[in-house]
Amino acid sequence: MNFASDNASGAAPDVMAAVVAANDGHAPSYGADAAMARATARIREIFEAPRARVHLVATGTAANALGLACLCPPWATVYCHATAHVNVDECGAPEFYSGGAKLTPLAGDHGRIDPGALAEALAGAEETGVHNVQRGALSLTNATEAGTVYDPDAVRALAAAAKGYGLPVQMDGARFANALVHLGCTPAEVTWKAGVDVLSLGGTKNGCLGVEAVVLFEPERSWEFELRRKRGGHLFSKHRFLSAQMEAYFADDLWLALAARANARAAALARGLAALPGAALVHPVEANAVFAVLPRAVHRAAMAAGARYYLWPASQALDGPGEEPLSARFVCSWSTEAAEVEALVATFVKTGAVSAG
Amino acid sequence: MNFASDNASGAAPDVMAAVVAANDGHAPSYGADAAMARATARIREIFEAPRARVHLVATGTAANALGLACLCPPWATVYCHATAHVNVDECGAPEFYSGGAKLTPLAGDHGRIDPGALAEALAGAEETGVHNVQRGALSLTNATEAGTVYDPDAVRALAAAAKGYGLPVQMDGARFANALVHLGCTPAEVTWKAGVDVLSLGGTKNGCLGVEAVVLFEPERSWEFELRRKRGGHLFSKHRFLSAQMEAYFADDLWLALAARANARAAALARGLAALPGAALVHPVEANAVFAVLPRAVHRAAMAAGARYYLWPASQALDGPGEEPLSARFVCSWSTEAAEVEALVATFVKTGAVSAG
Amino acid sequence: MNFASDNASGAAPDVMAAVVAANDGHAPSYGADAAMARATARIREIFEAPRARVHLVATGTAANALGLACLCPPWATVYCHATAHVNVDECGAPEFYSGGAKLTPLAGDHGRIDPGALAEALAGAEETGVHNVQRGALSLTNATEAGTVYDPDAVRALAAAAKGYGLPVQMDGARFANALVHLGCTPAEVTWKAGVDVLSLGGTKNGCLGVEAVVLFEPERSWEFELRRKRGGHLFSKHRFLSAQMEAYFADDLWLALAARANARAAALARGLAALPGAALVHPVEANAVFAVLPRAVHRAAMAAGARYYLWPASQALDGPGEEPLSARFVCSWSTEAAEVEALVATFVKTGAVSAG
Amino acid sequence: MNFASDNASGAAPDVMAAVVAANDGHAPSYGADAAMARATARIREIFEAPRARVHLVATGTAANALGLACLCPPWATVYCHATAHVNVDECGAPEFYSGGAKLTPLAGDHGRIDPGALAEALAGAEETGVHNVQRGALSLTNATEAGTVYDPDAVRALAAAAKGYGLPVQMDGARFANALVHLGCTPAEVTWKAGVDVLSLGGTKNGCLGVEAVVLFEPERSWEFELRRKRGGHLFSKHRFLSAQMEAYFADDLWLALAARANARAAALARGLAALPGAALVHPVEANAVFAVLPRAVHRAAMAAGARYYLWPASQALDGPGEEPLSARFVCSWSTEAAEVEALVATFVKTGAVSAG
Repeated sequence: MNFASDNASGAAPDVMAAVVAANDGHAPSYGADAAMARATARIREIFEAPRARVHLVATGTAANALGLACLCPPWATVYCHATAHVNVDECGAPEFYSGGAKLTPLAGDHGRIDPGALAEALAGAEETGVHNVQRGALSLTNATEAGTVYDPDAVRALAAAAKGYGLPVQMDGARFANALVHLGCTPAEVTWKAGVDVLSLGGTKNGCLGVEAVVLFEPERSWEFELRRKRGGHLFSKHRFLSAQMEAYFADDLWLALAARANARAAALARGLAALPGAALVHPVEANAVFAVLPRAVHRAAMAAGARYYLWPASQALDGPGEEPLSARFVCSWSTEAAEVEALVATFVKTGAVSAG
Repeated sequence: MNFASDNASGAAPDVMAAVVAANDGHAPSYGADAAMARATARIREIFEAPRARVHLVATGTAANALGLACLCPPWATVYCHATAHVNVDECGAPEFYSGGAKLTPLAGDHGRIDPGALAEALAGAEETGVHNVQRGALSLTNATEAGTVYDPDAVRALAAAAKGYGLPVQMDGARFANALVHLGCTPAEVTWKAGVDVLSLGGTKNGCLGVEAVVLFEPERSWEFELRRKRGGHLFSKHRFLSAQMEAYFADDLWLALAARANARAAALARGLAALPGAALVHPVEANAVFAVLPRAVHRAAMAAGARYYLWPASQALDGPGEEPLSARFVCSWSTEAAEVEALVATFVKTGAVSAG
Repeated sequence: MNFASDNASGAAPDVMAAVVAANDGHAPSYGADAAMARATARIREIFEAPRARVHLVATGTAANALGLACLCPPWATVYCHATAHVNVDECGAPEFYSGGAKLTPLAGDHGRIDPGALAEALAGAEETGVHNVQRGALSLTNATEAGTVYDPDAVRALAAAAKGYGLPVQMDGARFANALVHLGCTPAEVTWKAGVDVLSLGGTKNGCLGVEAVVLFEPERSWEFELRRKRGGHLFSKHRFLSAQMEAYFADDLWLALAARANARAAALARGLAALPGAALVHPVEANAVFAVLPRAVHRAAMAAGARYYLWPASQALDGPGEEPLSARFVCSWSTEAAEVEALVATFVKTGAVSAG
Repeated sequence: MNFASDNASGAAPDVMAAVVAANDGHAPSYGADAAMARATARIREIFEAPRARVHLVATGTAANALGLACLCPPWATVYCHATAHVNVDECGAPEFYSGGAKLTPLAGDHGRIDPGALAEALAGAEETGVHNVQRGALSLTNATEAGTVYDPDAVRALAAAAKGYGLPVQMDGARFANALVHLGCTPAEVTWKAGVDVLSLGGTKNGCLGVEAVVLFEPERSWEFELRRKRGGHLFSKHRFLSAQMEAYFADDLWLALAARANARAAALARGLAALPGAALVHPVEANAVFAVLPRAVHRAAMAAGARYYLWPASQALDGPGEEPLSARFVCSWSTEAAEVEALVATFVKTGAVSAG
């Protein structure tokens, strides 16, 4: 019953097998390996983007920060949701890699940027000329930190607002596969066809050991990206071990199968919670995370029974008397078993019934 | 009738005379001039701070950014008011000088940080450990961007909240003299005695050509400051021309006399506006700036009559029919004449009467 | 016959097996995994350094740049050999992570810093006070880029020179195991007992997939390191896959066995070259790399026969008439077979005999 | 007898008068003042460069670092003479403003970059692709730190070598007027017509209080420069006091008259030294600085008699027995009197005669 994070899960068997298989003999280092060429070709095919440049790094923070640094100069700001990973979970990596750019946190329900908030922020930036940080780039997280998804229309509308000011658009797709499975559209439709210029295409959370592809849909910034990656210490010498993960991840649509499983588990958990007295979903469940409010006593009992998940926000105190409801985040991964979800719901039901009694 | 900014005023005659007088023969460069030693001694005396280190730069942005960089590491955040100069008027200078720190904008009426907002932001930062930007420093602007003033108790309370987390406190005193004249307290009482570690002590806006003193109340960071200043290109070779300004500025309490005149003009303007139909002050008038709402027609007429000031925020449109009220900022300086204020009020009265008629 | 780089080799079977084994169920992320605790304990034991802090990253560039950034402020310089990886092979990573520090390249035969050159550079830095970049840190590469090794006395002497000016000492140990095997001393003797403060302890080149341990022999800078690592995007979420490599690497002295094999191959190659007419070693062969001069025709024939290695420096032209000697680098790894060395030497002998005939 | 630095001199009377005159009433701030428009027009005229953009800052370090930051990305290197101000006298300002670029120090007699050294450095940079810092920009100092001058042919040859690799060229003209007076060519001939893209056009050392013009001969980078200047804290609010200096400086060719006087004094000093037993010039005297070797006893006596200048390099010890020759730098400025030179030479002659006797 581990719902703490998709980071706590391991690697999918096929991905691990590919890593083991890649360990055969010598291979050119630093990205010149044959597997990288194959992974690039496959990603271009999947995204219908033959001109795209693909570069691999090992962490999502690196993917986002390097991508944004290519798009946003030091004296500009990245518009993002207030809860975006780039804003609150990367210890200032975008600021560091960009050379001191700002991030402008925007409001919006359920983790999605409110179009009005973006429009207002963009318009407001023009007042002071050289004195203020300039408009830089738009960053969208898909799936969002709230477990919701931007559909192509939503991406297009926000991207269009940014492009109205000449700004490029980056997408943090650490959970892109989960979003895509929910949407049922093509990868191109929710990215470059909707205005996304650079995509962090996540593998780590969805069954890889540690690999993210940064997809530049236009090649112009590719060499700059490579220099920034090397300079950031993110160019792997034994690069084949990154390539192999990505090759396996995209083979036979494994990435979608893994994400579909995680999403299905989250949906099952949401259904279980919906039937629970005193429980309420905080956000629509569209990807692999469930945010829900439950009575405090239910949380206490579930955690005592071995359930692993985070109160969200973490500032809430589990200890205390009574039934005060607390919100929590439950993350499912490719490896979450249906039985785990059933066991968690059963634990909730059991305690909830008692405490409601 | 120029109320656009205290930046539009010139230098006070005694300050200019000191610059001219400093141009006599050779002088040691880079801060080793005798006038600098005298200015330092005078500032230590005024602030009752014999251990303080004083360094001069030519702009307020440099003073703030260099001071903050000494206090806040790259992976931390500076808590400041949302309207603070460091946040909205320095094109990211604090981010640049700190090596990519964040600024956390806080709410608060009339340009003053709300203690509750600060407490909440400080408490909220502890949730995610290494993943989030760390708490860095507190920056207070005194007088504020809204023309109000923090009194020693207010500074002490906010500084104590910061120091409860081990954070240092910087004060942007670009208009420190205006604040001090309003308060009637000693310089020490509203700075180091209330918890301020580093002060940007402004001269430029209050009768100098271009000079700010950065006062480090404890000497520990002084050499680091000097290296950062040099590296930032802010160490003057012919430093005597900065020192001379500061020496004259603090001689015979000139700085207070100049600020008192500016404050008195603002008070007179506020009184004039109070009697005007359809006019209302936006913020209490405590220093040298007046923020007021006036009917649009009154603005139009006044500007047509040659009055110079900014609609605030600048996004408001002067053109348009009717009497819709617009807010504006009027800044008085040491050189604002009583007659100018009277003329401005008279213009308002004249138009206001017509438009009200 | 691949002698291009130890980066072109794969992972040792035991290391790969550990990675596979680590993929069992859930594990705490971001370094809180149990394997990390075990790896830390083992490294502390090996280095007789119970207070040491150990942090893992995936690349040598990250290890060096993060370590140096903790030691050298932005306004200072890192003294290093002119050929050091930090100076010429990291695309400015130390400059980036330090916030703009300089590197001062020093001369010295066979990749080792000349003590006189270091003394002169250190002494010369004191002339200009605030105007010049300050002394920052000393970086030693062991084994060096020339395939030679600093012994404990050499480290101690250079470190003492640095510490005479209060400077910390970093060691780039990307090939530390190769150096240690050559020296036959304890890990402590050539590191902290000789004055090293921070060690990049390499795994990647010597049989891992991609992992380096940064060992801080004193704990003071550990939290700063963690923040810099996160901010640099180098904190792995599925950290267990780094920990597992390191745990296997240090188990049963595997790291030394792997390095011993690589060193033995290099020694064998050196012996083979010594007997070759027209061949000469460029540097003493002390670790796993051989630098040698060979007639151009010999290079051409060997490469035509499938030998893989780099002319060193790369600016030399393979094409051209005659016997002009060209220098080259041959790197052996844990996976280099004795037969490969024999085959390479045989190729050389065959061509050399012909061309000498 | 103050020959320590041209920084120790004051401002020329006409420049100071212009500053005083500029202090009349209100003026638009931040560079929108009328004097700035006039200064720009004048500089364009002088340089026959109607498209040029001109921006003012107060220090030479700021001028150089901001200009270079517009030309050289963070992952590249600036080629400069080993003794260049940007390399040894700015505490890493170019590294800071560029976001961590390198500087590659080049050899060359008498402060001028040796064309062969530049060619070799440029060619050598291509070996390692993404792994090494890239070629960035060329920086020439004119007049050089050795008091010599690049003529248009020399500039053209070095600039052509840089442009062969697509690199832009910056000129540190802190003493540009002194160079120009020596050359007798037009300003355009030794700058943009010879390949210079950005010029730091110095005023401070040659009779201003503190002002340098950065001239961008092509307008493309002008807005970026403005943002970097603001962000660096170098945009003056009371900008008119910078503009006024520059306007006066270029009026009636004052700048050339001032430089001609300084150069003449240096020439006179050089002649005086030439006749002195035991004295020898270290560099040709082409601008306003004289580098000469003199017996130690002569230095001691001259300093005892009140002469002010620096032993160069500063590491030499004045104290000690005998006649060991020491090298020194003597800098003349616009304000150096002929009588001062005569007095200095007379002191030397007197002591030299005694010590030679």
